[in-house]
Amino acid sequence: MNEAEALAAERTRLRLTCRHLAGHGPIHPAEPFEAIAAWLRENGSRDLGGGFVPGVQPDVYGTGALVEDFEAEIAALFDMPAARFMPSGCMAQPIALRIWSDRAGNPTTAFHPTSHLELHEEFGYRELHGLSAHLVGDANRPTTAGDVIELIGPGGAAHETGLASLLVELPAREIGGQLPSWEELVALSELCRDHGIRLHLDGARVWQAAPAYGRSLSEIAALFDSVYVSFYKDVGALAGAMLLGPREFVDEAAIWQRRQGGTLHSAMANIISARLNLAGCLERMPLLVERARQVAALFSCHERASVIPDPPHTSMFHLRLEGEEEQLLQARDRVARETGIWLFGTLKTVEGQAACQVEISMGKASLALENEALAEAIALLF
Amino acid sequence: MNEAEALAAERTRLRLTCRHLAGHGPIHPAEPFEAIAAWLRENGSRDLGGGFVPGVQPDVYGTGALVEDFEAEIAALFDMPAARFMPSGCMAQPIALRIWSDRAGNPTTAFHPTSHLELHEEFGYRELHGLSAHLVGDANRPTTAGDVIELIGPGGAAHETGLASLLVELPAREIGGQLPSWEELVALSELCRDHGIRLHLDGARVWQAAPAYGRSLSEIAALFDSVYVSFYKDVGALAGAMLLGPREFVDEAAIWQRRQGGTLHSAMANIISARLNLAGCLERMPLLVERARQVAALFSCHERASVIPDPPHTSMFHLRLEGEEEQLLQARDRVARETGIWLFGTLKTVEGQAACQVEISMGKASLALENEALAEAIALLF
Repeated sequence: MNEAEALAAERTRLRLTCRHLAGHGPIHPAEPFEAIAAWLRENGSRDLGGGFVPGVQPDVYGTGALVEDFEAEIAALFDMPAARFMPSGCMAQPIALRIWSDRAGNPTTAFHPTSHLELHEEFGYRELHGLSAHLVGDANRPTTAGDVIELIGPGGAAHETGLASLLVELPAREIGGQLPSWEELVALSELCRDHGIRLHLDGARVWQAAPAYGRSLSEIAALFDSVYVSFYKDVGALAGAMLLGPREFVDEAAIWQRRQGGTLHSAMANIISARLNLAGCLERMPLLVERARQVAALFSCHERASVIPDPPHTSMFHLRLEGEEEQLLQARDRVARETGIWLFGTLKTVEGQAACQVEISMGKASLALENEALAEAIALLF
Repeated sequence: MNEAEALAAERTRLRLTCRHLAGHGPIHPAEPFEAIAAWLRENGSRDLGGGFVPGVQPDVYGTGALVEDFEAEIAALFDMPAARFMPSGCMAQPIALRIWSDRAGNPTTAFHPTSHLELHEEFGYRELHGLSAHLVGDANRPTTAGDVIELIGPGGAAHETGLASLLVELPAREIGGQLPSWEELVALSELCRDHGIRLHLDGARVWQAAPAYGRSLSEIAALFDSVYVSFYKDVGALAGAMLLGPREFVDEAAIWQRRQGGTLHSAMANIISARLNLAGCLERMPLLVERARQVAALFSCHERASVIPDPPHTSMFHLRLEGEEEQLLQARDRVARETGIWLFGTLKTVEGQAACQVEISMGKASLALENEALAEAIALLF
């Protein structure tokens, strides 16, 4: 083993054995499958003394009670007419925009310059669905009604706006989990309705937005025509997403899902994992939003650290640290060795500056750390 | 419970408790996850007496040793330069044809009239990828070089053929698992190479073709430019597929996979399930091809039964039964109650005839049934 390999091995050891500041903490990869198997043993078919009792059966190509009951449950949670389980948000969101564009006979959509569709999806919306997108508003803050008016011009009627849809991410991940104010969001929704622009929610982390706004998920969803939610980020399930909207919209989405190769023989593992983890996520989320503010304050009292936004809007924020990347990673390793606390994983150098940035998102692990131990670990970093 | 519900419940009970003629037989849905968890406990990180030993880590968005080692293993098995794990064949195959079309600057492909792409994928190849397809040859037999010549005209050079690619399914599922003869397949491959037509293998069940031809998987793959294989059909894994071909082809396919929403946070369950089940499939397959001939003979000696093709080419065949659907299903139920053997699931009425058809594919369960008991059960059906 050379020096670089030894360092990588040491970092893996620290990452897997320390207590974590962010996320749900390291788990053994067998754990999710043990939980799924245990649930199936409890709910699957059984041969009791009195005879055979049929139980949960795997979903088959997106049908069956296992997936349909879960879709109904999520639709009810958001008070939307229908929902469809899909493998990923990368699949669900371009499909939503495609359907709204087809209805409008207009391939043009719009979203934030840091939208996942623009940064991380190899432009599937354009290359597969033939859509074109305006990047609307300032890259460093949430999209507002004013930004949209600037794009479409004042007083433009539906057919004049040139926009079939607008996608809004709540909270906006790439800018530290920022949310527009509730009033700004309502104004944006009203503007879209007035102008016949379909408003789609990128709700990958919408679970955070509910306690942050002090509103229910259905109050948030009521401002949108369609909604995407993810089950592996805050929820902590294996993988999987849901697309919600009107019944015919969701039926059409299921056809696109098939076309994109997303209607699997069985998605049982992801469905059960999502069901098993969702209730805990919903229960935990108000605590995590509170926890993000506490943790942010423990960092921002240090001169070489700052948080974006300050204070955090949701259960996540961006941490900015002055210093070179490798030097900061070495400091992180030292803290981990001395305190048993793993503060963050990879860092991203801020272009042209001697500073780095990292996303810090609260999860199960974040609740288990005592403030005093954490403050000490953070102080040791500098 | 009304009469229809009672009948459905009784049929579920029979299906889940009888020994099966076809497939791998009913298993408890928890079993695959127990196997995955056990494998991960054995291969995951451990804290031994001497200290922490890192083990298998989940794949992350299609990267990491867990998935990359498996891709290398399958590439080696087929002697192809590279391979990419994907969620499904519905995703993999249109991507393959799209890439070959992009290279040729020609959106036209061709496949059998009963191809999965034409019958079961909501025309993703056309609606998403903008390809157009010729349905080539007779719907009731495998595609031959003669069929292609008829389509492109004799002596057509690459740029004149109007075909960027040809997709061939081995064995062809919708026609009872028929294979062209080896000589016909070689002639088809040579014709495509001579005319610059990229030949793609729909190898959803190619595992059957190797022992049927008495050739290795790599000998078969050598006739093709790209190959798709599936892990949940004959292999019996949860879900998942692989696309194989030249390195740059596979790299490009990975970009399309991302665009289609198929690059998941983790596909660990499907990857491990495929790895755990593949060796058994390869070992079993010669026996299953032999078994299909035995089972087909047990049916075809009855006047009201026939098999397509007769004898079977591979480890599957189509069974045709004279009679009305509901009457045959009731006979199946009676056989199940009296013999404990479940002969088939759903039936499909042959249009305009008092006859039904069903696919019978050999799997683990098929090897466990004694010929005598099976012959008795089949006799009871009529």
